[in-house]
Amino acid sequence: MTEPSIVFYDIPSNFSTNCWSPNLWKTRYALNFKGLSYKTVWVEYPDIEPQCKKIGADPTSTKADGRPHYTLPVIQDLSTGAVISDTTRIAQYLDATYPDKPLLMPAGTAGFHLAFQEAAHALISPIYPYGLPASQLKMNPSSAEYFRRTREISWGKSLEDLTPKGDLDVAEWKKLKDGFTKIDEWFQAGGKENLYFMGEKPCYADLWMTSYAMWISLSLPDKWEDMKTWNGGKWAKLLKSLEQYATVV
Amino acid sequence: MTEPSIVFYDIPSNFSTNCWSPNLWKTRYALNFKGLSYKTVWVEYPDIEPQCKKIGADPTSTKADGRPHYTLPVIQDLSTGAVISDTTRIAQYLDATYPDKPLLMPAGTAGFHLAFQEAAHALISPIYPYGLPASQLKMNPSSAEYFRRTREISWGKSLEDLTPKGDLDVAEWKKLKDGFTKIDEWFQAGGKENLYFMGEKPCYADLWMTSYAMWISLSLPDKWEDMKTWNGGKWAKLLKSLEQYATVV
Repeated sequence: MTEPSIVFYDIPSNFSTNCWSPNLWKTRYALNFKGLSYKTVWVEYPDIEPQCKKIGADPTSTKADGRPHYTLPVIQDLSTGAVISDTTRIAQYLDATYPDKPLLMPAGTAGFHLAFQEAAHALISPIYPYGLPASQLKMNPSSAEYFRRTREISWGKSLEDLTPKGDLDVAEWKKLKDGFTKIDEWFQAGGKENLYFMGEKPCYADLWMTSYAMWISLSLPDKWEDMKTWNGGKWAKLLKSLEQYATVV
Repeated sequence: MTEPSIVFYDIPSNFSTNCWSPNLWKTRYALNFKGLSYKTVWVEYPDIEPQCKKIGADPTSTKADGRPHYTLPVIQDLSTGAVISDTTRIAQYLDATYPDKPLLMPAGTAGFHLAFQEAAHALISPIYPYGLPASQLKMNPSSAEYFRRTREISWGKSLEDLTPKGDLDVAEWKKLKDGFTKIDEWFQAGGKENLYFMGEKPCYADLWMTSYAMWISLSLPDKWEDMKTWNGGKWAKLLKSLEQYATVV
């Protein structure tokens, strides 16, 4: 058996799946969906920047203090020498480099996928104050310490205070449900019975949404009990249907 | 020659094209793109609500005081009896009813078109304080009076004060350019040389964007001189290329 030619850098946890972050799920779903052979290298938070610099991965943004911000996912394609950061750029790279494998973004939909992500991300943004603190509880010690320290600075509050509680929980959870409901209307625009965004086959927009459903199902089982009833069970059905692409190798 | 079976209700003006509103251009481009035979009935603002009620057109939203808000475009398809309001619903109706004509939203992209409009509309929203006052100056008297009265209430200021001036003009016009530039990135995602959003052929997203370019080119020639240089001349090229679908009948 030959060695996989793609190295996927992911962030570990104590969840049963090890993989937990929605952005990392997006890339993992993408690699599995395309049926590419890859191996995972697990990188704790404090090691992300040194690891990225070592393999020549670009930063994905700039920190408040002006320094480059290195994030995962990153993939390293040993067969082409390419090192790609950022979920969207990875998906575009995989389609461009492996066009004979199932397309994440079918012909003509690359721009639509960017517009979808822009609009959908604004609608689901209330998810972070729920998912981030719950995920931190399951990180390994070095990541847990790093994540708490850096996120408490960027959010300006403790992770415990970040989690919506009481009336704020009711309001924010409803806002999240309204966002998912709006996105469900887009899913239904092509046909009310459609499970997938484009109809017959899943595309990257499906994997993208499912990554958030996966995140809540792992990190907040009680909230997931509610979310899985939303929109006629839409998100639970989608998660189940894409289970075949959730393999962690 | 048979009588056209689609009646298109549009709002007149003193612009050379008569048609002026970006939402009306969307539907006009759509009808021409599909090659459907239609006739225009021109309706002044004070007559929109009575006309809609007369033909059984649904309101498209609710006013601040709770009353239904009737808007154009509306189409009346005499061959099916359907009366449809709202640009997006009209485009969906035309594709569903006339699937053998060129598709505005090609198979699998109905949901993507909704996401595109959601994201793009947020990015181009600085356009209204420019286009609305300039358009009012070219309306016929009854529309001009109605439009000024109702819009000055909804915007909470005179149309003259609505138009950005001085530093605000610089800031808002830049915000609009940034929005168009972001959308241009989506256009380029499928290929840097692509003129059309999905590549080879125009789709409703192209007609949608061009409707705003058309609006500025008609109502604010000085601003258009600047806008047509944006993004390598993208919007001028798109407007020119879709000229064949801008026929006003």
